[in-house]
Amino acid sequence: MSADGKIAGTEHTQVRISSDEDLIRVRGLRKRYDAILVGVGTVLADDPHLTAKGTSQERNPVRIVLDTNGRTPDGARVLDDQASTVIITGTGCTRTWGNRALVIRCGTDSIDLPRALDILAHDYGIRNVLVEGGGTVIASFFRYKLVDKYSVFIGGLVIGGRTAPTPADGEGWVQPGGVELELTSTENYGNGVVLTFIPKY
Amino acid sequence: MSADGKIAGTEHTQVRISSDEDLIRVRGLRKRYDAILVGVGTVLADDPHLTAKGTSQERNPVRIVLDTNGRTPDGARVLDDQASTVIITGTGCTRTWGNRALVIRCGTDSIDLPRALDILAHDYGIRNVLVEGGGTVIASFFRYKLVDKYSVFIGGLVIGGRTAPTPADGEGWVQPGGVELELTSTENYGNGVVLTFIPKY
Repeated sequence: MSADGKIAGTEHTQVRISSDEDLIRVRGLRKRYDAILVGVGTVLADDPHLTAKGTSQERNPVRIVLDTNGRTPDGARVLDDQASTVIITGTGCTRTWGNRALVIRCGTDSIDLPRALDILAHDYGIRNVLVEGGGTVIASFFRYKLVDKYSVFIGGLVIGGRTAPTPADGEGWVQPGGVELELTSTENYGNGVVLTFIPKY
Repeated sequence: MSADGKIAGTEHTQVRISSDEDLIRVRGLRKRYDAILVGVGTVLADDPHLTAKGTSQERNPVRIVLDTNGRTPDGARVLDDQASTVIITGTGCTRTWGNRALVIRCGTDSIDLPRALDILAHDYGIRNVLVEGGGTVIASFFRYKLVDKYSVFIGGLVIGGRTAPTPADGEGWVQPGGVELELTSTENYGNGVVLTFIPKY
């Protein structure tokens, strides 16, 4: 996030906050997880590949998109052949993406996140997930107490704007009074710092 | 701010983010400035004293409230006799606060911040100001390129909510692409970290 707590500008305008050192860190981090997860909002706003560069298709983590209503575009980079992709939708969605993505339908109005993770673990052997964003998805993980570790890079930029997205958005508090965290490390990465916290549920 | 970039909860609900160590740091910081400045939103939401505890009236920094339309309540703690108080309003405001606050009227629709600081410096000898918030005021200082140093404590709490206030709010970007900052120090204060940045205008 920026030094004033934003992950993008007003209207979700993409802006570079990470230092070079932090980008290298995130790429390395991706290789250590079974899967990388984002919300469809991130796919629509940033169109990321979600791959670990220099890694073969077999060794790339699985890419997971939370997409209740099936809005992931056919041409999204996350559907390319660089890694396997799973799209998780609500049960009311009937859209498919051919052989480019495996679809799990789970939860009616919104995705049943604990159940989705159970399915991923039991049926697909996905035991750990790197949640990259956006703010709505990260807030949902905190709301369901599914976060084991929270790492945030704070970079040298002030963005401003009361509607600019932040690392944990969604509707109101993640829980009354918030979720307390214990700071476990502080590391400099170029012109910014990575803080790592463990939730105290 | 919280680990997800908030300075309060939804609807500006006050929540403790600072560690004990950070509260002591802020009290010490106040003694080193000629004045402490907040917006009227902070006065209405938190009703702060804005004094440095254990400091005599003469030695307390001047308290400044930016209050375009004169909404500071007569009973606000910032008007007590522990320190001098200056309320800066727009020229359209006629309200006074008796002998509890000196009033400067400056700017029509909104306060003319550069001019207000000039008046404070030339007429009252106030050469440096600690701006404590809230987010609208901090964003205005960045917009006018009036920030010399930006320090932010990041604490062990996740709040959530897309409407929760952040350190720099206001309308949209503080400037196109944001204001770049150089990180100059990282210090641990209990269960959190203080980052200090210098703007690169």
